[in-house]
Amino acid sequence: MNVQVIASVGEARTDELQNKTVIVIDVLRATSTMLTALTNGSRSVVPTETVAQAKSLQRPGDLLGGERSCKKIPGFDFGNSPFEYAPEAVKGKNIIMTTTNGTRAVQKSHKAAHILAGSLLNASSCAVKALQLQKEIALLCAGTHDVFSLEDGLCAGLLADELVRLTGGGCEVNDLGLAMMHAYRQTHDRLPETILSCSNGKRLIRLGYKEDVLYCSQVNRIQAVPQFHDGAMVI
Amino acid sequence: MNVQVIASVGEARTDELQNKTVIVIDVLRATSTMLTALTNGSRSVVPTETVAQAKSLQRPGDLLGGERSCKKIPGFDFGNSPFEYAPEAVKGKNIIMTTTNGTRAVQKSHKAAHILAGSLLNASSCAVKALQLQKEIALLCAGTHDVFSLEDGLCAGLLADELVRLTGGGCEVNDLGLAMMHAYRQTHDRLPETILSCSNGKRLIRLGYKEDVLYCSQVNRIQAVPQFHDGAMVI
Repeated sequence: MNVQVIASVGEARTDELQNKTVIVIDVLRATSTMLTALTNGSRSVVPTETVAQAKSLQRPGDLLGGERSCKKIPGFDFGNSPFEYAPEAVKGKNIIMTTTNGTRAVQKSHKAAHILAGSLLNASSCAVKALQLQKEIALLCAGTHDVFSLEDGLCAGLLADELVRLTGGGCEVNDLGLAMMHAYRQTHDRLPETILSCSNGKRLIRLGYKEDVLYCSQVNRIQAVPQFHDGAMVI
Repeated sequence: MNVQVIASVGEARTDELQNKTVIVIDVLRATSTMLTALTNGSRSVVPTETVAQAKSLQRPGDLLGGERSCKKIPGFDFGNSPFEYAPEAVKGKNIIMTTTNGTRAVQKSHKAAHILAGSLLNASSCAVKALQLQKEIALLCAGTHDVFSLEDGLCAGLLADELVRLTGGGCEVNDLGLAMMHAYRQTHDRLPETILSCSNGKRLIRLGYKEDVLYCSQVNRIQAVPQFHDGAMVI
């Protein structure tokens, strides 16, 4: 089985993802937040590319979430902080969500056989689920405005490591994936500090979201794996 | 000072390299081979993009070197193996060289203030030289047909580590560079095995060039740093 790590949405080619299982990774914060919302009882999370699309899809009772430049969109119910998506706020609700990079990664994967939402929080379960789906696997790091982001790469490294372990070495990992596996192994025992000191970590600290970074840096805390069905992420 | 690691030639934007010091990295094997040829007494190495260009630039006494698909080009004096460029073969000679990826990386950097040839063999000297030139630094991994190659990434990680060390932490390294620094630190004590098991390493073993991979995996064995002047790499 081939495992291909892709550095950012800008480098993903839609045709290359065709008929694969794509694990979309946006550790800070889209996929971590989607996972948290769904684990806290949200019925579904619908990723959309634009603010206008999000508003047009909203039915009575649905909530709007998302960010631009890491900040909540005016008129929306939530920003992109996982802490906003508490059980009392999201239980039984559909959430229409637009984020800068994570949502674009899902859109870019529309020809995939399966789309999963991966994060450090659910990496192990995500690897198990991806293997069950029995397709070639692409780990699509969302990145930031088409530039590679360290936290997504480290998560891809962890996922690739898990996939290699679960298949007893029966995976062929591309060179970028091998680099990320090495980088993850080097940093796994100080992941929060490592992620706080990379580009998005520093930006989120400046904006007052240090706790979000620490939350999203936890490994295998959640077992659920969001999967894309009929336009929405569900667990 | 900013240190930017770029994953492959395909991702490099010429304008982004303008007025910077670009260290071109093609560990397997273009920059390792250029460095070896120059250290062995070659007067200059002229990188060209096409076979036709190489032939048209050849003056009496000049030698032709290069590869396509890792193999020597018919009619050329040398392929791309560093062992071919022995002192008795290259002393005092100009070598016109065309390789698939390394040469393209040099061409892509034509707006740079300075272009250096980096490899594991001369990483430490290369970092010192780049700092002396007092410009922003880009580490351009040649990659393979616009895809990231692990050996180039590990070399970029070593170079970034050296730059951070030499400046006492006074470098801002981009996220891809941080990932490569971690990957290098994780693998530095088994670099030959790591490089033999990545994509280009395996390909070169298949083609009978395992010794080339082992040679190119040595760290800081050579102090010279090829620099691009008037169309040619010289030391």
